[in-house]
Formats: sequence, structure tokens, C-alpha cells
Amino acid sequence: MRINHFLKISELNKKTQIKGWVKSFQVHGKDLIFISLNDGSTCKDLQIVCKKGLDISLLTVGSAIAASGFLQKSPKGGQDVEFVADEVVILASADQKFPIQKKEHGFEFLREVSHQRARTRLFRVINAVKNEVNYSIHEFFYSRGFIWIQAPILTSNNCEGGSDVFEIKNSENSFKKTTLLSVSGQFHAEAMALGLKDVYTFGPTFRAEKSNTSQHLSEFWMIEPECSFSNLDENINLMEDFLKFTVNRVLRNCHKELKFLSDKLPNNEDLISKLENLLSEPFIRISYREAIDMLLKEQARGTKFENNDIKFGIDLASEHEKYITSKFKKAVFITHYPRAIKAFYMKDCEDETVLAVDLLMPDVGELMGGSERESDFEKLKAKAEEFGIPLDHLNWYLELRKYGYYSSAGFGCGYERLIMYLTGMKNIKDIINYPRSYGQLNF
Amino acid sequence: MRINHFLKISELNKKTQIKGWVKSFQVHGKDLIFISLNDGSTCKDLQIVCKKGLDISLLTVGSAIAASGFLQKSPKGGQDVEFVADEVVILASADQKFPIQKKEHGFEFLREVSHQRARTRLFRVINAVKNEVNYSIHEFFYSRGFIWIQAPILTSNNCEGGSDVFEIKNSENSFKKTTLLSVSGQFHAEAMALGLKDVYTFGPTFRAEKSNTSQHLSEFWMIEPECSFSNLDENINLMEDFLKFTVNRVLRNCHKELKFLSDKLPNNEDLISKLENLLSEPFIRISYREAIDMLLKEQARGTKFENNDIKFGIDLASEHEKYITSKFKKAVFITHYPRAIKAFYMKDCEDETVLAVDLLMPDVGELMGGSERESDFEKLKAKAEEFGIPLDHLNWYLELRKYGYYSSAGFGCGYERLIMYLTGMKNIKDIINYPRSYGQLNF
Repeated sequence: MRINHFLKISELNKKTQIKGWVKSFQVHGKDLIFISLNDGSTCKDLQIVCKKGLDISLLTVGSAIAASGFLQKSPKGGQDVEFVADEVVILASADQKFPIQKKEHGFEFLREVSHQRARTRLFRVINAVKNEVNYSIHEFFYSRGFIWIQAPILTSNNCEGGSDVFEIKNSENSFKKTTLLSVSGQFHAEAMALGLKDVYTFGPTFRAEKSNTSQHLSEFWMIEPECSFSNLDENINLMEDFLKFTVNRVLRNCHKELKFLSDKLPNNEDLISKLENLLSEPFIRISYREAIDMLLKEQARGTKFENNDIKFGIDLASEHEKYITSKFKKAVFITHYPRAIKAFYMKDCEDETVLAVDLLMPDVGELMGGSERESDFEKLKAKAEEFGIPLDHLNWYLELRKYGYYSSAGFGCGYERLIMYLTGMKNIKDIINYPRSYGQLNF
Repeated sequence: MRINHFLKISELNKKTQIKGWVKSFQVHGKDLIFISLNDGSTCKDLQIVCKKGLDISLLTVGSAIAASGFLQKSPKGGQDVEFVADEVVILASADQKFPIQKKEHGFEFLREVSHQRARTRLFRVINAVKNEVNYSIHEFFYSRGFIWIQAPILTSNNCEGGSDVFEIKNSENSFKKTTLLSVSGQFHAEAMALGLKDVYTFGPTFRAEKSNTSQHLSEFWMIEPECSFSNLDENINLMEDFLKFTVNRVLRNCHKELKFLSDKLPNNEDLISKLENLLSEPFIRISYREAIDMLLKEQARGTKFENNDIKFGIDLASEHEKYITSKFKKAVFITHYPRAIKAFYMKDCEDETVLAVDLLMPDVGELMGGSERESDFEKLKAKAEEFGIPLDHLNWYLELRKYGYYSSAGFGCGYERLIMYLTGMKNIKDIINYPRSYGQLNF
């Protein structure tokens, strides 16, 4: 029986057996030992009180034990209940070299033993939130009639062109063509949406960029919904609904975890109120041009931006995005970006902008990006050529437009980025259990 | 509004607008046109009756249309309701070359346009079942307190050794080591289970085998649960519970889809009763030795097997498995296989067998496989060496045993194989929307 289940149904004083790993222990004389036990199911450890003689010479931090006894109200503070054991069996001991000891471990050290991080309270909590978000993703889309689809990982196109991509060695032997790891499932999702109307992918995507930062991974998961007959506005509504649904579910079901993260991490005290506030009001929606105007006005007031050549056409830098979200103190959708700085498949407007949208979050920056897709074959082909996209393996994608393609819109949301926002964690390598990034592939 | 939602809430005679794609149409004189419309949300097309003049010169199969009108009881058989349109707008026409026409298309032809298969009723139905199973997987494990985890795709080990694996080109430049695509998330799941107790993965895995059959893919999805403190028996219970839960949910929520598949596919009439029967009784559990005895007795009765050298130690061939499941007419767990023919990480028994289990289904063959893992560091290391497993990148996995590893058990279930069983489809390339196999990587 998992400890959380046991605590939920437990009757006091009823004899039972629980199993878990020793987080720490304290010896108070020969006949009193306190053991903090966890089996991964609770945020807090369960205190085991061993009153009878236990041969503690073999007890080590990390050992797996089975404790037989009963639950009682705790006479002391710090916990409501404790487990009084009349027998404790060491099922499997842990070597003294076990890296996860009682003391605080730095993030950097834990990354070096990332296969063992789930044995710390912090990473159990992060995994609990991730699990809740995974379920929330499927619940949100399932309940709205979306069909989950698998976008392939092995692919012959690299979607937007620009990204660095991983290539399979000797793929000519296996597939008779150069084979890459997918950077996005969007194109495949568009084709499916053309038959199933509303679809979503949730799976891994890859970038081969030679960067090693706290914000990038070589392998990460994306949520990519795509809706036929949809437009930019409906897509923005979907983005807002999706994020609010997920935040609401995490607030409801992970309250203890959020409280722990809020107490534990630096500058994270306002985690819960930040999430609650997100739910209370509509997100801001402004155009890129309005954003540029805001920045120009601020500049005119004397504020210095590092990137100070602010005008229509620039990519908004982090500092610009931060200024805008801090001004509103809310999530901000920015729409209608200049066509030249966005992907070729986004639908052109008449004023050199495209039907694109990015969602910016205070502190975190861009969390999602989406667009309405170009639905006209000739226009899309001309734009792909203008943007220098190699079309060898993309004809199937362009030609979708020939067969009843009225309109389609969708967005991409990085799962690990979303978890960073929901937990207040600062390094994306601490969100995914086995981080892969430039120069780093362990375990 | 999606058509299925519209049909559910519809009030007769209330004016509304629906959108979808033209599956087929029939012209009965100038002022009566019947259009079969689908938007991917229903198994059956909705019949649109256009009584007023519609310029059908532009109407083609595959076109996207918007129909305004109301629902009424259908005067004729074939459907309960029909949609009487007073206006039909062609939103996006389809070129006459649209490959999905009204006639029946063979599976082989449809594989060549696999990006457009979701526009046929059959593949809409398959995707509906797949979506239900996806949700069912997460619901089953979530409701039992399992934590969903991401197993990495990029990896430096190939798990069992034997399989052909894909390698990333120039991975030394990116990761300073040979980098492969994962064949299984089990090792990573074991490490996580050691902190979270019960975990599961659901994600893509890869095999580079140069085979091109109806049963194999280069890229497919696996469900891999792993439970600490668990043993072989509990693992077998979990396998049975998982399959029954999924079958039950599909029977409940995809009845129309199953009925369609049962009518449409050859030799699939008993699909629904096959699934219902599965739920009604416990699965059979026999040991490998008992299976061998059964085969020997059958052989002694004069039955000829192609592989007739039946004795302890052989890999059971398809024909052997078929004989066993046909004898019981039920799902059969076979346990305690010879250690020499199973993976090195499975726990040894004293009689040259290991704590392994395969689940065999009538007609389909092996659907899942699992084991209790070796928990002793020295034994595991010796066995890995005996089996010739390269240990360069596996020390982290072996060393998990040094830190409170009492016992762990889990199984792997191929998602596409599971869908084949649930639908009665015969070719795995018709289950995944974008099949990748030897020599084949399109779209």
C-alpha cells in the first residue's frame, strides 16, 4: 500500500505494514529510533517511531525497509500522525556512498546524479506536478473532443527550416533518404486535423543547437493542438483556456506540492497567488505594433533598453517582453508579428504582418506560440520559396491546401517550460529527469 | 460546433450552421442534392439535404463546406436524422485529383497517402479508438497513483543489447559520445521507480531492424510501467488489470466504432464478443515448462509442428503460441522462461528459469512482456558479463542495486499492437498514421 493511500484511509491503531525508503533517522538511546520514511507518494515524510530494539548497525539513509505497526496521533508538533512500529525489517540496505543524504544538495550536484534525483523531496514534488499536468493535458483535450495523435519522430523535413536538427547516421541504408529527428509535429498534425478537425500531439521534439543554457534542451516535449476551420482568435481562446484549465487543476490537486515549492525555492513565495491571479482575469491581448508603441513611449520617457533600436520589424528581446508583462502584471498575448520574423506557413495580412501569436508570461517570457496557417496553395508555395525553404520533402504538406483546406490554426507549448512556470523552478534541466543538452548525455 | 456534439444536443428544427468535408454527394434533379458530410467527429456521415438551388458545378468530394439549416427526423431509412440546408457555402474546394474518393480504397493504396487516410471513415474510426486508449492508459495509471515519467529518446545504451538501434550522426560533436535512439524506457523507469515507487512511461521507441513486415515498425509507442517493491505475481495482476480496464473502456465508449470495424473488416465479426469474453474470466497462467509439456503431448498425439524439436530451452514459435492460446481460447500468461532466451536483467530462479512473463492473445500472439528484475548488484553484473552486454554506459543502472533496491517489476506493452488487438486490424502500418519501417519514410 502506498503511504499516501494509507494515510488517507488509515484507521488509527490498526496493525499494518508499510514499505519505503529511509530519508533520515535519529537514534535516541537504545530503544527509541525515529525514521523519516518516504515511498514517493507523499510530499512529506512519514515519521516512524521504533520503540523496541532494532539493530541499527545496518540502517543507512536510502535503505528500503518494511515497518509493521500502527498509526497514532503524534504527541509532538511537526506532524499530525506518526507510525509506531513494533517491527522494522531492512529489505535492502543502501551503501554509505548513497549520494542523496540528509543534508541539502545543490541543484548542480543533483544534476550529476539525475537518475537518483527522484529520491529527494524536491524532485518527488516536481514529478507529482508533472504527472498532474500530463493528466490535465489529456483531460482538457479529451473532454473537448480533440483526438490525440502521434506525430512521427523520424522525419524527412525540418518544419520551419531554421533550426539545427539531429540526423540519423546512415539513414540512406534504412530509409533511402536523409532522416532527421522532428523539431515539431505541426505539419503532421495539420494533415490529421484535415480529417479529424481537432487534434493534438504530446510527445518529444528535438533541437541540435549547440547551446547549453538554463532554458534549452536538446530533447523536450511539446503539446501541439491543431484545429481545422479555426482562426487566430479561436486559437488564442484555446491557448488561454488550456493554460487556465491546467493551472486550475494543479492548484486544486497539488496544493501541498505548490506550498512546498513556494517555501523551498528562493523568490518563489508568491507562487500560489501568482497562479490564482492568473485565473481571475482575462489575459491581455495586444498587437505587435501596440507593443512597439509601448516600448517607444517608455524609451521616450528615458528608459534605456540594451537593444534600443526599437521599430517595426525587430524581434522582441527578453528585456522588451519583460517590460511589457511587468507593465500589465499579467499574461500577455502579442499578435500580428512582422511576417519577415515569423515562419513561412503563417497566414499573411495585408500590412506586412502575419496571423501569429505569442503568449508571454511575467518573469518567464514566451510560453506558447501559435498561428493561423496559410490555406492557399499558391501563396504558401511562393512564400516558402521566398523564405528559402527546401521543398523536396514538403510537397505533401503544401498540397494539403488543394483538398478542402479552409483554415487551420494551432499552437505549440513546451511542456518543460510550462512546468517551470507552474513550479517556479529556474533551470529547465531540473524539470526533465534525464536532461539532454549540448555536451551532456548521461544515464 | 463539431457534428457529434451537435447531434447530441440538437433540437430539431432549430437553425444552425455546421462545417465539414464532403464525403460524397448525389444530385437528384436541379433542386435536390444529398451531401454526406463528416468533420471527423462521428463514425457515420451526416446527410445534408439541399432543397434549394446550389451551384454544384464547384462541388467536389473532399471540399470543405458550411451548411446552414436545421435537423429533422429522416423520412427514409439509413439514418435517424438528416440536416435540411437552406444554404451551403463551399469554403474550400478540393481538386478532382483528391485521392480519397467515394469508392472503396485498398489498404495498400491508402498507405501511399497515409497523411490523408484520416479522411476515410475507417481511419477516423481507428483514430477514435486510439484516442480512447490513450486516455484510458493515463486514467488507469493516474487513478492508481502511478507517476507518468518521460524516458529519454536520446540515450547511450541500448537496453537489452540484442536489438538493432538507430544512431545519431556526428553525435560525438553534440554529446561527446555515441548516441542512440532508445529501444525501451525500462532502465530509466527503474531508476525513477526507486524514488516514486510506481511509475509508467508512454512514448516512442525505436528499432532499426531491416525487416518490412505487417507486424513491425521502426518507430512505435510503448507503455512501460515499473513498480518498486513489486514481484512477478503482482506484475501479472497489473498486466491483466490494465488490459481489462482498457478493453472495458473501449467497449463502453467506442461501441459504434467497434461495430463498424466488426462489419467492415474480413473475419472480424466476433470483435465485440471477443472483447466482452476477455472481461468475463481470469486469464490463464501457466509456466513455460507446462507450455512445453502441452506441446509435447500434442505432438505425441500426431500433430505436426513446423518447428518440431520441442524441448526446454527453445523460443516458442508463433505456431506454438497459437496452439496454446487456441487450446484455452483465452489470454494466456506464460511465466518462468529459460534464462538463456530472456534478457540479462531478469531475476534468476534456481532451475535455469527467470521471473519473466509474456502475455499471449488468441490470434494476435504476444501482446505484453514483463519480468521481475534482478535486485542484487553482484548477480546482475555477473549475468550482464556472462551475456556479453557492454557495460560502458550501464554502470549507473547496475549501481541502482546498491542503494535500497529491494525488488522491482514491470512490463512493456506495444501501443500499436494493443490497438491491432482492439480493432481487429491486421497490419501495424495501418495503425500508426505515419508508419516508419525499413525503406519507408514518407511524409
